[in-house]
Amino acid sequence: PRQHGKLFLVGAGPGAADLLTVRALAALKAADLVVSDRLVSPDVIRLIHTEIIFARKVCGRAREAQDEIYTWTLRALREGKTVVRLKGGDPFVFGRGGEEVIYFSRYGYVPTVIPGISSSISAPLSAGIPITHRGVADQVVIATGRREDGSTPEYPHYSPRRTCVFLMAMGTLRSLTAQLTGKHSFPPNCPCAVVEKATFTEQRVLHGTLETIWQQAEALKITSHATLIVG
Amino acid sequence: PRQHGKLFLVGAGPGAADLLTVRALAALKAADLVVSDRLVSPDVIRLIHTEIIFARKVCGRAREAQDEIYTWTLRALREGKTVVRLKGGDPFVFGRGGEEVIYFSRYGYVPTVIPGISSSISAPLSAGIPITHRGVADQVVIATGRREDGSTPEYPHYSPRRTCVFLMAMGTLRSLTAQLTGKHSFPPNCPCAVVEKATFTEQRVLHGTLETIWQQAEALKITSHATLIVG
Repeated sequence: PRQHGKLFLVGAGPGAADLLTVRALAALKAADLVVSDRLVSPDVIRLIHTEIIFARKVCGRAREAQDEIYTWTLRALREGKTVVRLKGGDPFVFGRGGEEVIYFSRYGYVPTVIPGISSSISAPLSAGIPITHRGVADQVVIATGRREDGSTPEYPHYSPRRTCVFLMAMGTLRSLTAQLTGKHSFPPNCPCAVVEKATFTEQRVLHGTLETIWQQAEALKITSHATLIVG
Repeated sequence: PRQHGKLFLVGAGPGAADLLTVRALAALKAADLVVSDRLVSPDVIRLIHTEIIFARKVCGRAREAQDEIYTWTLRALREGKTVVRLKGGDPFVFGRGGEEVIYFSRYGYVPTVIPGISSSISAPLSAGIPITHRGVADQVVIATGRREDGSTPEYPHYSPRRTCVFLMAMGTLRSLTAQLTGKHSFPPNCPCAVVEKATFTEQRVLHGTLETIWQQAEALKITSHATLIVG
């Protein structure tokens, strides 16, 4: 009879190995194969003592890399292996976890999903910025800085009691902040911060305003995986 | 010389003990005293083998309960103890973590903050609802169902590519959904779900529309700690 493997879709959290959940760590230890995104941190990768395959690229030719992930994972499942599909942060917060659940379910492998700490929450936290604060901010918007096609999404208009967190915002920081102060009526002097390499020892935090932050980020050569927090 | 204790502000996650992060678990094991919110689940509480004090109430006379938390915690810190202040979910997502950081820092005890899985993310996930999905939803709003004074916050207007997650929405579900379809232009047939006791074995998920969900929730006597997901 054909063997059937087990599939876990696991959030690796923001980077530090001990910010994995206990359940995620147990899944990694029990796996025969880990298929990992390139974005997962070296600290987490070092915990894995079984076979690992890395997605070839995260940016760029994403479609091809995704097809390879599907091929490798299905092959191992059909061999009866226990596979962990490891994703940075949380699998369902801009991690395309939903797409993978649908894909693998179609082949009879419904993944068990294990959440991870999303960098949309840990980046502000590790910079000491509470994204909600009683009487000051009673809601949070989490968005990507850019869509697949490079355009920026439609954001809600400015509201003084709403914090906005933009992931992967660096590539479009100048146009994004211009869009917010223009079309979306954010005040140009609205305080904001950029957090790079959140939760790591190399973490850098910039404080500024919507008008000035892109220049500060450019001057310091902040990389594309940083997070922008507004309000 | 006066002894100085150490303070950790720790997110307990959505409930299941193995959804604690490894770092949070280590902090609990190293603590002399744990000061816990009532909302923290019994599964997590069972892991603690040191002194625990529970906040008397979470709802109702919140101010008084908070003052007691401050008194107990400061007393233990001044005795040189290592104290974990344990909060449900994540301390900075509607957990008033920011207020506690400010308060204790004023007394010279700057807390080390350890993130937790927020139920705003794990509740949709454990109901199989991806809160972002490429080409379908590119942003998420996380909000409370009600403010301190019982009123509902100002939410953004309807946008088809935006998922909204409302925590502690049950007390105001009828007026909240009426406000969304009225003032905020959400379509009455907009799909939504209510998740009660997310990640627990007793978890219940209701699917409906903005127009009907409050009646379904009322019929099933859904409790006040459930989460509403719209879009």
